[in-house]
Amino acid sequence: MYEIRTDLALEAREKYEKGNVEIKGVKLEKTQVSDDIRITSMVIETENGARTMGRPKGNYITIEAMSMDDEDEAYHRMISKHLAHIIRSLSPGGKRLSALVVGLGNREVTSDSLGPKVADQLFITRHMMREFGDDVFGKHQNRVSAIVPGVMAQTGMESSEIVRGILAETKPDLVIAVDALAARSTKRLNRTIQITDTGIHPGSGVGNHRHPLTEEELGIPVLAIGIPTVVDAATIVNDTMTGLLEAMAAHMPYQGMDASYRTLDEVERYDLVRELLTPQLNTLYVTAKDIDASVNRLSVTVADAINLALQEL
Amino acid sequence: MYEIRTDLALEAREKYEKGNVEIKGVKLEKTQVSDDIRITSMVIETENGARTMGRPKGNYITIEAMSMDDEDEAYHRMISKHLAHIIRSLSPGGKRLSALVVGLGNREVTSDSLGPKVADQLFITRHMMREFGDDVFGKHQNRVSAIVPGVMAQTGMESSEIVRGILAETKPDLVIAVDALAARSTKRLNRTIQITDTGIHPGSGVGNHRHPLTEEELGIPVLAIGIPTVVDAATIVNDTMTGLLEAMAAHMPYQGMDASYRTLDEVERYDLVRELLTPQLNTLYVTAKDIDASVNRLSVTVADAINLALQEL
Amino acid sequence: MYEIRTDLALEAREKYEKGNVEIKGVKLEKTQVSDDIRITSMVIETENGARTMGRPKGNYITIEAMSMDDEDEAYHRMISKHLAHIIRSLSPGGKRLSALVVGLGNREVTSDSLGPKVADQLFITRHMMREFGDDVFGKHQNRVSAIVPGVMAQTGMESSEIVRGILAETKPDLVIAVDALAARSTKRLNRTIQITDTGIHPGSGVGNHRHPLTEEELGIPVLAIGIPTVVDAATIVNDTMTGLLEAMAAHMPYQGMDASYRTLDEVERYDLVRELLTPQLNTLYVTAKDIDASVNRLSVTVADAINLALQEL
Amino acid sequence: MYEIRTDLALEAREKYEKGNVEIKGVKLEKTQVSDDIRITSMVIETENGARTMGRPKGNYITIEAMSMDDEDEAYHRMISKHLAHIIRSLSPGGKRLSALVVGLGNREVTSDSLGPKVADQLFITRHMMREFGDDVFGKHQNRVSAIVPGVMAQTGMESSEIVRGILAETKPDLVIAVDALAARSTKRLNRTIQITDTGIHPGSGVGNHRHPLTEEELGIPVLAIGIPTVVDAATIVNDTMTGLLEAMAAHMPYQGMDASYRTLDEVERYDLVRELLTPQLNTLYVTAKDIDASVNRLSVTVADAINLALQEL
Repeated sequence: MYEIRTDLALEAREKYEKGNVEIKGVKLEKTQVSDDIRITSMVIETENGARTMGRPKGNYITIEAMSMDDEDEAYHRMISKHLAHIIRSLSPGGKRLSALVVGLGNREVTSDSLGPKVADQLFITRHMMREFGDDVFGKHQNRVSAIVPGVMAQTGMESSEIVRGILAETKPDLVIAVDALAARSTKRLNRTIQITDTGIHPGSGVGNHRHPLTEEELGIPVLAIGIPTVVDAATIVNDTMTGLLEAMAAHMPYQGMDASYRTLDEVERYDLVRELLTPQLNTLYVTAKDIDASVNRLSVTVADAINLALQEL
Repeated sequence: MYEIRTDLALEAREKYEKGNVEIKGVKLEKTQVSDDIRITSMVIETENGARTMGRPKGNYITIEAMSMDDEDEAYHRMISKHLAHIIRSLSPGGKRLSALVVGLGNREVTSDSLGPKVADQLFITRHMMREFGDDVFGKHQNRVSAIVPGVMAQTGMESSEIVRGILAETKPDLVIAVDALAARSTKRLNRTIQITDTGIHPGSGVGNHRHPLTEEELGIPVLAIGIPTVVDAATIVNDTMTGLLEAMAAHMPYQGMDASYRTLDEVERYDLVRELLTPQLNTLYVTAKDIDASVNRLSVTVADAINLALQEL
Repeated sequence: MYEIRTDLALEAREKYEKGNVEIKGVKLEKTQVSDDIRITSMVIETENGARTMGRPKGNYITIEAMSMDDEDEAYHRMISKHLAHIIRSLSPGGKRLSALVVGLGNREVTSDSLGPKVADQLFITRHMMREFGDDVFGKHQNRVSAIVPGVMAQTGMESSEIVRGILAETKPDLVIAVDALAARSTKRLNRTIQITDTGIHPGSGVGNHRHPLTEEELGIPVLAIGIPTVVDAATIVNDTMTGLLEAMAAHMPYQGMDASYRTLDEVERYDLVRELLTPQLNTLYVTAKDIDASVNRLSVTVADAINLALQEL
Repeated sequence: MYEIRTDLALEAREKYEKGNVEIKGVKLEKTQVSDDIRITSMVIETENGARTMGRPKGNYITIEAMSMDDEDEAYHRMISKHLAHIIRSLSPGGKRLSALVVGLGNREVTSDSLGPKVADQLFITRHMMREFGDDVFGKHQNRVSAIVPGVMAQTGMESSEIVRGILAETKPDLVIAVDALAARSTKRLNRTIQITDTGIHPGSGVGNHRHPLTEEELGIPVLAIGIPTVVDAATIVNDTMTGLLEAMAAHMPYQGMDASYRTLDEVERYDLVRELLTPQLNTLYVTAKDIDASVNRLSVTVADAINLALQEL
């Protein structure tokens, strides 16, 4: 079966939502924090829930903000504050932390450059605190280091190899990985932030990591912050196609489409679509025309949030 | 009617090719210069031909090279030589030229950065030849200047305004405009070069210029060199959709689709598809995952060609 | 005579300041706006004053802010406000303006990239106001366009040629040129902003423009905003050398330096130094090790100021 | 005593060369490979030699090519070949290697960007050879990976921490570190390449590393390839000052400088100079005005050499 790809847990949840059914082992809580901003907290609590959702147990918090793709500094500052609170709530507490921020993705591809651009704008403190003492920036500043590991075509190495090596050497308490994601719906592009304590998994991100960056693998907590900047080309074709088939079923009964077709289920439709998809489609993605401005703005929003969160964690 | 967009004259020609019909006023000549490289010369000779093709009278030469998206320096050097010959054949002859190369597009968006990256790699001579004499680089070097006008969101100005102003001030004999194009077929991405003496027209290029850069407008010959790096999102949806409708018509007769549907013509199908397309789709484009490497390689190929052509024009 | 180069009128003034002499035709007014920030307003009022100062009649306003090279957002925002007020005070008033900001310098050389980086961060409005009406951003927003003309090695053209052409085409009311400057004193690097209504003159800026960008040349007012990011290599050698000669004259009388040497005047000392300077020195400049962080910060400060000034000019 | 800084072993050797004295434990061999290109091979063989030279035992090979700062592709290709041979001669032989290239320095500061720019242009093979087998690029291609570790202000980590971590994880056989260097003489800027098997030492490079990247520290051979792109500001002041003092001693005897001054030795002169140097000078460096073009050209030359060397090592 053709698996529609999305890196957003919220979108994975949506296919079960039509009947508003509850999913066993998955808790969902939505908070409308303003007219335009909704924060959804999803907890996958059981292995059963994990199987249903197709992703590991843990917290998935999503900020949906429909104006996030617009240029409005005050609005972005508000988003940064919400995001900072979420980062803190998912971080280990009780002591001064040493955090390594990993800016995943390819700096040279605009839609994949969110992670590197966030890393560029962080308040980096580890080297100064090591040299001049932990209080050089006050009592509430954590140690912050950052790495932009690049992509395999540039380094010949998996991001996970580079990060694992650096962790062994510098021993931080927390990894915060930032990455551009793939959404299922074009409406979410540049308008949704997902924060999860389950880390980064193979096949996620625009650049499609092959190895996980998770607490299980790395031995320390891994927060992942992601924003969808692309949709797989196959996905939008699928979506429109499904719409077409539904439209035909609904509006063209007089054209004699009989019952057997109308009941083509989703799986069969996908198979049909898949057959039609050219192989090229798998190496293509869909992104917005003004992606440069969007990524620049969003990188400020995320960097501000991380800076804020790590000042007083 | 929903107009499928392509910046390639060759693709515009293709919809008439099925029956291999000749189009009045349009001459077509294909040369297989090697196993893998084909050069097609199309001349739109009459106003009639121009109307049929939806583009102005003039020469449209296309290099199709299926391995052009691979990393092979010798191959790219060969393409550069073919391209250099075509540039010369379409340029005014008989005297030393002064050429302004215009690198159109947005440097910050990878798929739109071909023009600026080509401009970065040119052998710029005008300032030296003005200061030290026309022969400072030998008898066969033309005067070369270059401008990267940027996009409206960066400058507040049309590229055409900037170029027109510079032309009035520096009075070159020839404009060579380089731009990333939109193709109709994903198979052409990064594998086709179009050179035309008809300049740049509204709606062409990834960034969608609104005003023409043509000899008519600028008063001097304008060569346009373009490579398709994106496909409009609407186009790939359309294409797959058309495939789906055809497949359904062909393989599901037993499902009772009656004749009226099977005979839905292209226009009606487009209308159907268009209805289903979300408005977002118009601001989205499809591009390849490794577009950074492709654009880097192709910018070398085009810059080498221009450098070569202008050394001995 | 070896002319010590500085782009700062304030430094040119300083050589006459020792005796606190007044210079005829040059008015000077210093305002200490805070402990750490001083604004000096110099008006060269007469041709005589212009000759003495070696620069044209007009206003030269200098913000000296000793912490300007540090990372302190609130401080930089304060500087931006002062700068915005000065920009307004030197701009034509009484109507909505159309301003072209020119980001001079070479984006590829960190110490020369101030102008391009400022241009990247402007609120560009001209294209929107032309399309959607002058009030699309409210009653108080001026039309803003921007150009990064690049340097001769990249374009083969003088910045002035490009700007003149664009002015003829787009007809703004005001040019604001931003450029990195050369100072005489290393203490001023990244700590001083000069705003003048006399424009840009040959030999000023890091990249050494050959042609003026002045109201006289361009036909509309030209504000120039500059920050010194480099010192000519010859200058620091000169300065230390002068210190050495003075130290020797003062502290080594017992070594028998006779009166004739001690009275070597400045001109003779320069001649001596000049003889010793290798020719390479003329193509070298001195800059700070962390120039990347400085230019990034300062470009935000200047861009904020221009955005602010042009919102309510 | 004020220590004149140079990263070039050749320049450190030069202060002993006036009398053409031999230095015990240091072997020197000069080869004029063409009119314009000289290769000097220096071997520091003993601890004594190491103490005299102020750098560790090992091989230091220097290519001096006076036209290396010019634009001449054929010339640069020749330099690349010489460099490739030297890289091979200093690399472990006898088996297919896995090499990690480390692009040291700050991508954002033009004069310090050599390492990162070289890394950008390498033929990266490790990931492909791991996935598709060691022979996917033929029998003679080594495994190549690369990392651009960034600088402490960006990462909060020493380059050495990042590299050590990656080595532990990916276990290559060889490190090739590329870095921009500081020379003593402005004449060497962009015209000299040093290759050594002694690695990178604290205080070397433009960015001044604090921790070594050496075989002793890392456990595998470390080749360091460097090109001087800057001179410390203190150095050029010192040099001209020394010239001045000598000139005065020589040409102004009639001015009564007595013997005691003329015999001021180098150490005393440095002390005098040092007193006069402003503290700012220590954070300043001198570089060429067209450093962007130089670094771009040189990065191609070095990357070509590494690619060549690792194809058939």
